[in-house]
Order: sequence, then C-alpha cells, then structure tokens
Amino acid sequence: MTQADQGGRNARPLPQDLAIDTLGRCLLPSPVTRHLGERGVKFVGEADKVLLDDSISSLTQTVPDTASLPAFELAGPRDKIFFDPRTLRCGIVTCGGLAPGLNNVIRGIVLELWAGYGVRHIVGFRYGYEGLIARLGHQPMMLTPESVASINHEGGTVLGTSRGSQDAGEMVDNLEANGIGILFVLGGDGSMHGALTLSAEIARRGLRIGIIGVPKTIDNDVPFIDRSFGFVSAYSAAVDVIHSARIEAVAARNGIGLVKLMGRHSGFLACQAALASTEADLVLIPEIPVLLEGNNGVFACIERVLARKGHVVIVVAEGAAQDLIVDPDAAPGRVGSRDKSGNAKLKDIGVFLRDRILAYFEKVGRETTVKYIDPSYAIRSIPACPSDSVYCWNMARNAVHAGLAGNTAMLIGRWHGHFVHVPIALATSRTRSVDPDGDLWMSVIEATGQPREFA
Amino acid sequence: MTQADQGGRNARPLPQDLAIDTLGRCLLPSPVTRHLGERGVKFVGEADKVLLDDSISSLTQTVPDTASLPAFELAGPRDKIFFDPRTLRCGIVTCGGLAPGLNNVIRGIVLELWAGYGVRHIVGFRYGYEGLIARLGHQPMMLTPESVASINHEGGTVLGTSRGSQDAGEMVDNLEANGIGILFVLGGDGSMHGALTLSAEIARRGLRIGIIGVPKTIDNDVPFIDRSFGFVSAYSAAVDVIHSARIEAVAARNGIGLVKLMGRHSGFLACQAALASTEADLVLIPEIPVLLEGNNGVFACIERVLARKGHVVIVVAEGAAQDLIVDPDAAPGRVGSRDKSGNAKLKDIGVFLRDRILAYFEKVGRETTVKYIDPSYAIRSIPACPSDSVYCWNMARNAVHAGLAGNTAMLIGRWHGHFVHVPIALATSRTRSVDPDGDLWMSVIEATGQPREFA
Amino acid sequence: MTQADQGGRNARPLPQDLAIDTLGRCLLPSPVTRHLGERGVKFVGEADKVLLDDSISSLTQTVPDTASLPAFELAGPRDKIFFDPRTLRCGIVTCGGLAPGLNNVIRGIVLELWAGYGVRHIVGFRYGYEGLIARLGHQPMMLTPESVASINHEGGTVLGTSRGSQDAGEMVDNLEANGIGILFVLGGDGSMHGALTLSAEIARRGLRIGIIGVPKTIDNDVPFIDRSFGFVSAYSAAVDVIHSARIEAVAARNGIGLVKLMGRHSGFLACQAALASTEADLVLIPEIPVLLEGNNGVFACIERVLARKGHVVIVVAEGAAQDLIVDPDAAPGRVGSRDKSGNAKLKDIGVFLRDRILAYFEKVGRETTVKYIDPSYAIRSIPACPSDSVYCWNMARNAVHAGLAGNTAMLIGRWHGHFVHVPIALATSRTRSVDPDGDLWMSVIEATGQPREFA
Amino acid sequence: MTQADQGGRNARPLPQDLAIDTLGRCLLPSPVTRHLGERGVKFVGEADKVLLDDSISSLTQTVPDTASLPAFELAGPRDKIFFDPRTLRCGIVTCGGLAPGLNNVIRGIVLELWAGYGVRHIVGFRYGYEGLIARLGHQPMMLTPESVASINHEGGTVLGTSRGSQDAGEMVDNLEANGIGILFVLGGDGSMHGALTLSAEIARRGLRIGIIGVPKTIDNDVPFIDRSFGFVSAYSAAVDVIHSARIEAVAARNGIGLVKLMGRHSGFLACQAALASTEADLVLIPEIPVLLEGNNGVFACIERVLARKGHVVIVVAEGAAQDLIVDPDAAPGRVGSRDKSGNAKLKDIGVFLRDRILAYFEKVGRETTVKYIDPSYAIRSIPACPSDSVYCWNMARNAVHAGLAGNTAMLIGRWHGHFVHVPIALATSRTRSVDPDGDLWMSVIEATGQPREFA
Repeated sequence: MTQADQGGRNARPLPQDLAIDTLGRCLLPSPVTRHLGERGVKFVGEADKVLLDDSISSLTQTVPDTASLPAFELAGPRDKIFFDPRTLRCGIVTCGGLAPGLNNVIRGIVLELWAGYGVRHIVGFRYGYEGLIARLGHQPMMLTPESVASINHEGGTVLGTSRGSQDAGEMVDNLEANGIGILFVLGGDGSMHGALTLSAEIARRGLRIGIIGVPKTIDNDVPFIDRSFGFVSAYSAAVDVIHSARIEAVAARNGIGLVKLMGRHSGFLACQAALASTEADLVLIPEIPVLLEGNNGVFACIERVLARKGHVVIVVAEGAAQDLIVDPDAAPGRVGSRDKSGNAKLKDIGVFLRDRILAYFEKVGRETTVKYIDPSYAIRSIPACPSDSVYCWNMARNAVHAGLAGNTAMLIGRWHGHFVHVPIALATSRTRSVDPDGDLWMSVIEATGQPREFA
Repeated sequence: MTQADQGGRNARPLPQDLAIDTLGRCLLPSPVTRHLGERGVKFVGEADKVLLDDSISSLTQTVPDTASLPAFELAGPRDKIFFDPRTLRCGIVTCGGLAPGLNNVIRGIVLELWAGYGVRHIVGFRYGYEGLIARLGHQPMMLTPESVASINHEGGTVLGTSRGSQDAGEMVDNLEANGIGILFVLGGDGSMHGALTLSAEIARRGLRIGIIGVPKTIDNDVPFIDRSFGFVSAYSAAVDVIHSARIEAVAARNGIGLVKLMGRHSGFLACQAALASTEADLVLIPEIPVLLEGNNGVFACIERVLARKGHVVIVVAEGAAQDLIVDPDAAPGRVGSRDKSGNAKLKDIGVFLRDRILAYFEKVGRETTVKYIDPSYAIRSIPACPSDSVYCWNMARNAVHAGLAGNTAMLIGRWHGHFVHVPIALATSRTRSVDPDGDLWMSVIEATGQPREFA
Repeated sequence: MTQADQGGRNARPLPQDLAIDTLGRCLLPSPVTRHLGERGVKFVGEADKVLLDDSISSLTQTVPDTASLPAFELAGPRDKIFFDPRTLRCGIVTCGGLAPGLNNVIRGIVLELWAGYGVRHIVGFRYGYEGLIARLGHQPMMLTPESVASINHEGGTVLGTSRGSQDAGEMVDNLEANGIGILFVLGGDGSMHGALTLSAEIARRGLRIGIIGVPKTIDNDVPFIDRSFGFVSAYSAAVDVIHSARIEAVAARNGIGLVKLMGRHSGFLACQAALASTEADLVLIPEIPVLLEGNNGVFACIERVLARKGHVVIVVAEGAAQDLIVDPDAAPGRVGSRDKSGNAKLKDIGVFLRDRILAYFEKVGRETTVKYIDPSYAIRSIPACPSDSVYCWNMARNAVHAGLAGNTAMLIGRWHGHFVHVPIALATSRTRSVDPDGDLWMSVIEATGQPREFA
Repeated sequence: MTQADQGGRNARPLPQDLAIDTLGRCLLPSPVTRHLGERGVKFVGEADKVLLDDSISSLTQTVPDTASLPAFELAGPRDKIFFDPRTLRCGIVTCGGLAPGLNNVIRGIVLELWAGYGVRHIVGFRYGYEGLIARLGHQPMMLTPESVASINHEGGTVLGTSRGSQDAGEMVDNLEANGIGILFVLGGDGSMHGALTLSAEIARRGLRIGIIGVPKTIDNDVPFIDRSFGFVSAYSAAVDVIHSARIEAVAARNGIGLVKLMGRHSGFLACQAALASTEADLVLIPEIPVLLEGNNGVFACIERVLARKGHVVIVVAEGAAQDLIVDPDAAPGRVGSRDKSGNAKLKDIGVFLRDRILAYFEKVGRETTVKYIDPSYAIRSIPACPSDSVYCWNMARNAVHAGLAGNTAMLIGRWHGHFVHVPIALATSRTRSVDPDGDLWMSVIEATGQPREFA
C-alpha cells in the first residue's frame, strides 16, 4: 500500500486573504488557546503521524527514511487555522439509515465550533442531502449550544435523514448561497461518495468550502476506522435480542432461535454481538460462504447442537448467503434492484433460512420450532451507549479541528487507538470485512464451537 | 349474572381417610401456623368473599340476604387443609406461548409448598401437556428450593412448553402413576380447557387429584382477572419498541412507525403500551372495527397527523382488522387454519397494514416511509419486571393455598385488588375485551387524539 | 368508621353566576362530550360510589339502607361542571421530595385540561409553595401541550420543588392576583396539610378556588390510596440495588449486604422491594420492633443465615429501629430536630446498623464485611416506569375531572382498583402502615424466612 | 525507556522433560490447530511485537536496528507450547474489590483451557489469596465448561474474593500439593505485587509453575493497558448516577448534585463518566490539585455555574483533594491507616465536600441543597456490559495462550489496540494517571467548561 496521507490536503482550497507560508499553511492563530486557558493547548504538529503498521516485524531491518512509511496524519487541534471563526458559517447534514450517536456527533460539532472556536453560525440541513436542494424547500435549522444541549439522550437524528444522492451542482449552489465554509457530512459509504462529488464540484468552482466526513456505518465496515460510532451501542442492543432468541429456543423441544442482524457486506456486527452474548451457537456472515446441506453444512451443525444441547441459537448477518437465495419472491427485495442510496436490495436471509430449516426438519421427520427475530429498527434507533457517547464527542471534536485547519474531502478515522485524518477517496476505495483467518473470526468459532468453514 | 361461587368446590374430591364435617370440609390442621410463627396466621374463613360489584349503585335499596350477592371466594390460607403435606406429591406444568413470570410462578409454588406446608415431592412436567404423556419419554424434573432459587432471573420457563392438547386419559394415567395429588397448570385459554377435561376425567375415575390453574395470558383477556401475570412486563417492554418506532418515524420525512403487539381478541396490551409510551398517535384493536378509507378512516387519520406533526406512530394489536385481510397469501397464516393450541391462525395485520399504507400514499403521490416492527418474541421472553415478580409470588402462594385446601378445577383470579378463587369453567365460559365505552378506551383516545370510531 | 364522603364537597365554593339546582349542583354542561365524539361519554353519576369494605362478611345480614354504607365517591368525568373552561385559569405546584412520575402528572393535567376541557391558561408555580409567594420572585411557567409533551421521559419535576410550608394568606393573595380557579397540589403528607390550610383561607375569604391534591409519597403510606404514583418505579429501582448488595455479599466470606430504603413511618417500599427482588434475607421496617441481641434478635438471625448460606442480605426502611439509636451523634440528624417540611429528622439506621453489626461480629470473633448502600437519591429521581406512566396519566385525568366538577380540599385516591375522591382532611387524619398480621408482612416472612417478630 | 520485553520470559521455568531448542523454547506442538480446524491457526511468531511508540515523529530519521526499538510481545497462540495439556492442572484466583467482568474472565479461561487446549483439570481458589492457604480450609471449586457456562450473566465473582496478601511459602506449598502448573491471578496492583512474590518463591524452589496476571482495576490505572476490563461497564453505570444527581439538582433552587466515583490515584473513571454523561459541570480528580477558595476555586466555579444554569453537577474521584481533608474524624478512614490490601485508607472526599460546600453557602447567605450520591458498591457489582464481555473473553483467551506458552510473571496488557504481554514487574513499577496536558483532560474541560486548573 502506498502512503496514506494523500488526496485530502491537496484538495484543500488555499486561503488568499491570509498570509500563508511556502507550504500553503494558513497563519491565523487558533483561538482554542484563548478558550481553554493560559497554559496552552498541546497542538498536533506536522510530523505527528501514526504508522499504518506498528508491528516490528513489518519494519525492514534498516529504514532509510521514516517519513516515507505509510502513515496517517494525527487528528487534533492545529496551532494555525484556515478559517476565521468570527465569520465562518458551518453546516451539518446526516444521511442514510439511523445509527446510535448521530445526535451526539451533531451536538459535539456544535459545542466544539461554538465554545472551542467561537463560531456563531451553524445550520443543520434537514433530511439528508435533500436538505441541500433549495427547491425542495426544507428550511435548515439554526443550531446553538442550547438547542443541542440534550439531544444526545435520544436516538435518531434531530436533523432528519434520507437515502439517496442529489445533484452536486444544486447542492453547491445552496452552500454558496448560505455562505457555508465547512460542511460536516455524517453518513455511510454512499454518502461519502456523495461528499467526494460535492468536493469535486467545489474544487471545479474554485470555492473555499471544506467537506469533512464523519463515517456512520452500523456495519462497522469503513476501512481505517477500527470502530464506527454507534457500533458498540448496536451490538450491545443485539445481545438482548440474542438472549430472547435463546430463551425462546430453550423453552421449546428442539427449539431454534434465529436472529438477523445488520451487515450488508461484513459480519462485524453479527460476530461482535455473538461474542458479547456468549449465547450463539452458529454465526453466519457474508465473508464465510454458507452451505446448508452436507456433512459440514448448516443443517448438520444444527443437528449436532440439538443433539448436544436440545436447542440452537443462530445469528445471521443480513448479507450472508445471498448466493443461496434463488427465488426472487422469497423476499421483499428483487435480484438486482437497488435502494435510493444505491445499495443492492438484499434478499431476506432470515425468512429464507427460517423456511429452509423448517422444510429440512419436516423432511427428516423431526419436529422443531423456529423463532425468528429481526430487530433492526429497534437497534439502530436507540441512543448512544455511554461508550459511544464519549467516542462521538471525540469524533466530533476532531472533525471540527480538521475542518477549521482547512482540510477537505477528509474524514475522521481511527487507527490503533488514535484519531486520524483519512482522505475520503482512500476510505471509499476499498471495503473492510472480517478476515476468515484473523483473530475475530477465530474468537467467534472458539466461542460458538461452530466449524470454521461450511465447505 | 348468577352466583360466581360455583363449580369448583363441588367438583372437589372428598377425603375419605380423614374425619370430615357435615359440609365435607377437611379437618387436617394447616401446618402454615407451625412454619410461620406462634402468633398464628390470619386464615381465610368461609364467609370471606369479595362482591362481584362493589359499587353502591349496584346494591338494591334493601338487600334481604347478602349471602346471595354474586361474590368470589377470597384466596388465601385455610385453617384446615385437605392433603397431608408429608405424603403429598405435586406436579407443575407450563403450556402455550411464553409470558414473563412463568419461572417466578414455578419458583413461588415450589417455595410455598416446601417451606409453607412441608411438601417434599414436587415434579415439573416438561414441554407442556406433552410432558404428561408417558410414551413421549420426557422425564419430569425434580423441583426443590435450591433448583428453583434463581430461575426467576430469566425469562421463559425452565420446564419448557408446547402448544396443543393431549389425551386426557393418558395424562391422568401418568398422574396416577406418579401419585400426583395436585397438578398446577400454568397456561392460557386453551390450556385451561385442557385442565377442565383433565379434571373431568379425574372425577370420572373418582380420584383425589386437584387441578389448580394459574392463568397465563399476555393478552390479559381472561375474565375475572384484572391483571394477568407478565402483562405489566410485556407492555413495559413494548414501550421501548414504540419509542424506537417513533425515533425512526421522526427521522424521516412523513415517517410512519408501525408496531404490532400481541392481542388476538383483545387490545389490552396495545392500549396499555400506547398509554404508557405516550407516543402513539393511533391504536388499532380487535374491539374497534377498522376502516382504512373514508373521511374518518385510518388513512385520513394518518394524513391529519402527518400534517400536524410530520410523522405518525401506529400501534396495532395482532387481532385487529382481521376482516379486512381478504388475500390469504398476504400473510403466513391461512384463513381458517389453526395452530396446535386450537387458536385460529391470524393473518399478519402488520405486513398488511404496511403494504396498504404504502400503496395508498403512492397512489396519492405523497412520499412516505413505513418502519414496521414486530417485537413479539423479544417481548414475551423477558424476565418478569419487579411488579410482576411480586404479583407472581402472590399468585403462586394463593395457588398453593387453594390446592392444599382441596379445591380443584379452580384458578386464581383477581378481583378489585383481591386474589380470589374462580372456577375454571366460569373463566373459560366467556372472554374479556376492551369496552369501547369504558374508561380504558376513553383514556386511549384522549392520549392519542384519535377518533373514537373509524365509522 | 364514619361515612367517607364528607368534608370535600361541602367546602366547595358555590357558583353564583350559574343556574344551580336545589342540591347546589352546577349546570354547565361538560365539554368532554364535544371533544370526545358524538357517541357520548359515560359520565359518573351521583350514586356511583365504591364501598369501603367489599367483603361479604362485612355486610350485616340485612342492610336497611345501602346509601348509609361507608363509601367513596367514584372519580371520573361529570356531565355538569362548575367552572367555565373558556375563562378558567389553573395552577400546578409540586412540593416536597422527588418521586418518579411528577412530570407525568403535570403533563397529564395539562393535556386533560387543554384537550379534554378546552382550558387555555395553565401555569406551573416554581419550587413548591415558595413559588406561590410573590415576594420571592419565582416567575410561574406557562404550560402548554407543546411544553409538556416530552417531560415525562425525565425524572424530577420541571417545576422544581422545595420543602416546607408558606404563609397561606400570601399564597391566596397570589392565587387571587393570578385569577387561579383550580390549584393542583402534587405533594406528600406535609403538603396536603398545607393544602388544607390554603383551602380554609380560601373559604374564609369566600373565594371560588378549588384545591385538588394528587398525593405523592414514595413511602406509599397515604390512607385510602392502595398505590401512590412512583411507588412501583421506586421499588423496581430498589431491586437492582438489593441485587448489587447480594452480589457484594456473596463475593465475600460471611459477606453482609445492607440496603437502606425510604420509609419514614412505613415499610411498604422495603417490603415490596424485598419481595420483588426475592433476594433479601431480612427486612426491617418501622412497624415491627427491632431487637438486635437475644436468641431471636437481628444478630442471631444473621448468624443463622450466614451458617446456612454464607452471606446475608438485609433491607432496612429508614424509619426502622429509631428507638435503638441512643447516640445522637451516630447520625447526621439530631433527636427531635425536624426538616423544613416538618418531618422529624431520622437518625441514620443504615450507618447505625452497619456499625453495630461490625462491632458484634468483632466481639464474637468472626470476620465479616458489611457493604452498605443508601440509594435514595438515585431511586427517587428516575423517570416513571411504564406502569406508573399509565397510572399517573389516570391520576391526572381524574384530578382534572374532580377540579372541573367543583370539588375542593379533595384528593384523588384509589380504592379496590377504582379511582375515588378522598377528602384531604380524611386522608391526613390518619396514616397507613404495614399490618403485622396482614398478608403483605406474611408474604415477606415467607419469602425471606425471617422470624415474624424479633421479640 | 528501556526495552519493554524483559523479565517475564527469563523468569520462565525451563522444561526438562521436553526436547528444547537452544533458546530454551519448548517443542510441544499446540493442540489449538487440532481443535480449531484443518486450515490451521495463524500463530504469533517470535518477531511479532508492537512498538511502544507508533508515531512517526518518535522514530529517528534512520533506525539502525528496528529490533532494538521498545516494543511489547504480541499476545496470542504460539505454535509450540510449554505444558502438556493432558496432564496440566490450572488454578484461578480472584483478589481485591469487585469489578464487572470477573466472571467473564473466569469463564473465558476455563473455556479456552478446556476447548482450545484440552486441559481437563481446572480449579478455582476461593476468596482471593486466602484460598491458597491450606490451613484456612477453603475447598477449591472444580471448574468445567458446564459450571461456568452462564456465570457471566452475574456480577461479582463465583470464586469469592478477599483483600490482603498471604504468605508466599504457604501458597506455593498449596500449588505444589495440588500439582498446579499455571495460576491465573485476577487482581489489582496489590495482587500483582503478590503475584511477583509468588513467582519469586516458585523460582527460588526451581518449580515449573507459571503465574499469569489479568489486571483488574476499576480505576483503569494500570500502565500499558489502555483499558482495564470492567472499566466501560463501570463508567456506563456511573452515567445513570450522574443523571440522577442532575435531576435532583435541577429540581431544587440552587441545587447541587455531587457524585463520588472510584479512583484512588487516578481520575480516569470520573473523567470518562463525566464525558459519557455530558451532564457534569465540574470534575475533580487526584491529578489536578483542588482549591476551594479563591477566584478560581471550586466555590467560585460553583457560583458561576449556579448563576448561569441554576444548578450544578459535580463528579469527584475518591482520591481527589486528599490534602485538603485535615480533620481525621471527618471520614471513616484515618490518616495513614491502610486496608488489608495495603491501600492507604482514603478520607471521604464526598462527605467532606458536601459539608464544606454547605458551610460556604451558609456563610455567604445563599440557600443551596447538596444531594450527595456514593454509588460505588452499586457500580462495581454489575455484570459486564456487552463491550466488556467481548473484551474479557479476549483477555482470557490471551491469558491462556500466554500461560500455555510457558510465560510467567507476565500479565496481559493492551497497547494501541493490540493485546500484548507485559512483565508484571514492569507494570507494577509505575502507575498510570490522567495527563493534565493530554487530550482526555482537555476533552473534559471542553465538555464541562470548567477551568483547567484551580490555581
């Protein structure tokens, strides 16, 4: 892999009304010092980067030039900032499906902009990118410390959200008309692609508008972010549902509890929820091909667990086993169709699996019951758990620092426990998935006792 | 209505090896005194009955004979008991779907039998009435204070459960073979019918086996029981789900949250959950006919709430609007089909309503989203809430008192805050439903602002 | 006991600008009909009363005149009301310590006044009776359906509260100046005494101001109210604390967990929490004299439980064993001192008991640890649980109905499952406590295995 | 700092009945392969180390020898193991105060030993190091997958715990007598010192017994472990308590809510709970000297917040401001006294602060109320939250891998998101505390608005 520190900073609009140094660095002193006390803030410097690989075995014996090692720019406050907070106008938009913590991030951005930098004009665009399309008539909300003070106690997003992209030209028109200097985009993969288009249009017009992403993915599948906000809340809530499934399974002869969890292309949520619950016997994820029949197939696994324990608990990620679902009418979505965010509509693996399991056991003449639970809306709508609350606050603070420092087309990531700057182009160029040979999957198969592969 | 105190006591097997008085009352002194201290227990006497109607306006101006007023026998310990606890063997069986508190009732029965009366042989039959069929080979569990000490911390039932009835003859054979003196049946309407059949067969054989029912209905629709155990737990859990639906609805333009709750023939759970949540805009229950179209129909109501608030939260009982679902393929169940407990399989009103609402708004050209949540398994599998914990404990104690005193075909009910004896025949002869003119429904329409009727 | 229906209605200010009948009943038709639909509301009539004693054995064989039986007036909407909702101004005040559900009751009163009757001027007085003293300068809050819509999701009271009484003259001056027609007082025993003084002063001045009480007592010790709002929430929260105490006790050799719960003069909360938790071994309440030493004393009980189980969990009501605490410095309060509400300051039984138990076991040479938890503030500040949420809503609705119908010096009680009108003078004339011979205490000693008395 | 990889491995007892290579590495092949499937496990190799500092700015421009960089050995399974699982006997002991997750770690160790390696003899020593003293007569518990299957659902520790150290000689006698090969010690700083003494005695006797530590500190103050197990659970529970304090504070005029949290020498828990709650106005920790009086003192801060918001919420770590408490009778502990674990008994800052605040405001003639909550036992006794559940499982797995591979006097740490081996000697040689110039404290002062220092 090449150097991670690319893209974002180059795309940054250069300040013309400020004295700048030869590197194009802006010279406005950060007001954070003033706000936070005389002793001074520990600012992040030019050389503060986090190695992409921090294991010794990854380093060659002699490293000629450490600066050339792949690394991320550390997030945090800079001593010089690009925008003048007294005149800066900022916008926030939340896109795509709900995730716990959206309100915490909104709140954190507003508080840091207001108290940390003295920004006094912050608007929230309503209902995702739709709110940036003037002709749709959604009035933006003015956001102040008072108006956001307690929004974190509720799930969802006070701004509203929607799926799908909008015309970049119209959106930039709106940003210009509103005099927005920084737009914070809270959204998933699709929204980050939208953010790239937006920043390309901004660059084409030569505008000084920064686009800062805060990646929102309940699937936890954004690369270079070892934990997306809301993820801990989500798998924590899923634990209760898995427990319910187990209680139902235990109460029936040959009872089978089946829980479908979010995870379109990755099984992080299913794995983590299964580990946290300690009660799953079988975890099916997109990364591990699923075989139903055969000696090492899902049916055989179920039979073995039933024989040993009398009941089975299965956790399945929504994106698992999509290749098996041949009947397009088995589920609400249709093959090849896509939702407004451009995501391929998945066929419902939960319903499919329930029906196939019932059919199998009817065939072999063994009575079973399957209790199927699909808790998605009830999970993604909860407030952030305390751990996510802290995490969102720090995400938000670093997003503001990144924006004020003049970055654009950049999102806040986390690498080896550090918050870092990740160019959106890099983050959207690949996906993150559960490594079938890695420790997470190993941990799951040890916890469940399931086979490593169904092949 | 005729006198409530009928049936049960007459069906009671008379003790032949004990001195009995002219009324057939048994003369063994209750050991509860010995166990509970020298000061003596306040026993319930012959005349302790609770009026069916305790309002003054119900009494005629002069009551010639108060003993003739309709009334229930008060539950509680009797000074004389029918069975000798030193030799008595008791059985417990749990039938039908899960409800919070089953384990609490099991635990309570065991503790009261053991510590209150000194009974030392208590078995739990496995998987509902199936466990009473010897040839199916389910070994009963021995139950002791130690083995049940902490089972109340989990939902479900440690005994397992199943739907459906079994052959009364085979079951009584088993009771005889095991020397069971009292069988405690925890179950719903179907199971109580089963209990009647069982006690009829017992009477036919002239056996001294008491059948005591503890009514279990998450729908809260058993008559003469103002609150079934697990009901408070269930609607409490439903509140969180309604809240999730609201969060989802608020976050979308014209967002519609739809929650389906249990309630085959009655809307108690839907009403109570809606009241407790304070967040429902529309509650649909079996007792109130549903009209979709028209000026006062569901669609019009939704439009009005959307216009006023921008989102709608709908709570629907599973038994509501069954007459509207004409397409038998709209839902997993089919018209006329029944499950193993003999309940008619309901057509899925949640899916039906979601699809019809989407179709309507597509027709009128207004974009909406419907987020539909069906939380049933996640609700009925939870542990009893503290309020139900106390309630189950008292249900269990009174069931034991009733059984030891020699009652049979009797269940424990609650009337105006008192635990009472209700003949199973009486309780199963009618159903309880939400009164469209009563205070509960009035309370709901005030809380939601919905019309009283859709007509 | 004499007839319950006294005091309140007689003290009612007579309407002079309305046609009234010979009984002084007002003739303004209730607008509830108009608001709630054409079908009409089932109004409560003159003769709708609830018998004080609904057991048959309490009725004499021939009752010459049922109207003379002790009974409470049923709460609920009346077909004629006293005040004209279009001009009526209402006030709400919350007094004394926090209890879960205060915000629910405030919200319910506002919604019922506004939507049920059309009242448009509702104010909340701040910080208890202090808010009625003009010279203290607390500005009342205007309350509307919007401002109270979500307050029930938080504990505490949006109005604020304070302890202590204020000068009745000054308070009535304020009510007059603000043109208040009905004042709803949410408070405990002390506040209800204050409400009586207030209504006496109102009567003295010949004013038409109704005072309606909603009894708030986390101790659940108000007579004629079988359940005070917030009580279920409180004991539910206490269950978690008792569980914590047990976990701590189990983890230590001879571990003793000690939890102090609210209950100045009554042990309802301690009993109910102990029953709900199923984990207490010893419950100490004010109604049962406590002996520490001796063969049947607390120390001996602890020793016996330790010998059997290895750990002990003790729940003590704050008002228990006050006679034992001889050293006035053993606790923050002093003998004879009173707080601002006029309650005698209790000596801290928790600290006292912890120290005495440690001293005892040190004396007998047995190592123990005592983990003492005092959770009061953490319990009384929680939001209402779903069960209390419904209950508060109905309390509030009935308080509004009572007020509009022209009652005064009346509080909303509950008797045998019915909401009823209870004259404040009657409710404050006695206290309610756990009956040492009743079923609640019996239930506790069966659940804990503790002796019935320490004597 | 010198190289981190020291001590532990050198102290390892050498195997004499196995072929070993020149480096003393054992040659028994790991059975993990066999248990976990044919595809093979990704074992951790010799060179897999994690850099102590992973920032680029920390690397010199040219690194001559990367192997000499300070680094930790990566935890995880090794391809060769030291002990023969078929004959190995393992012990587990839990020491000191409770922390959420103890049962999860016990369970994880047993499952990994049993299923991962095939160890069949695992005992749990009771009540901390006391359980290793034979003459005290605590019988060890046999631990199996069945016996530990569900223990994680409860807080506390099934083994029991105690404070204080015991004679190393007696303890090693016991280990020898029981034939223990690996002892897993779950405990805090004091217990880790005990573990060192134990391993020194083992080395002195030339025995082959490994001592593996799993650091347990609710204060989160063990160095080289960025997150101790139970920490997330603890601060999550503290959030609710802070919320209660806020509700109480808001409901009173000039209300002050005061919460004392664990943290003898470090403020991590107080900081993290305050951040997560978003409701604290003032956080006092041991690392930041506290001044009460003066223009920038605590009293002045309280006054400013009261003026702005009308109420204040204060979170104080138990170890804060110890220098201020001059009166030894102000708190249960005495100056200089120590508990059985050797920890200096702290004076009660909560009570001290409450009294001083009340005295101050009485002096300046402003009425306030202080509601003080000390939730410690209620926090440390809860079950592990889902996030800690996963974390404990991985801690346990890595502890087992470390033990089987022949490490001793080593604990499992976490560094930059990787589990690593940390010599106990290194971990106990220093303490970890909140950096007054670091991002955590900066984050707190931004969140609260409090001054950075009280000086």
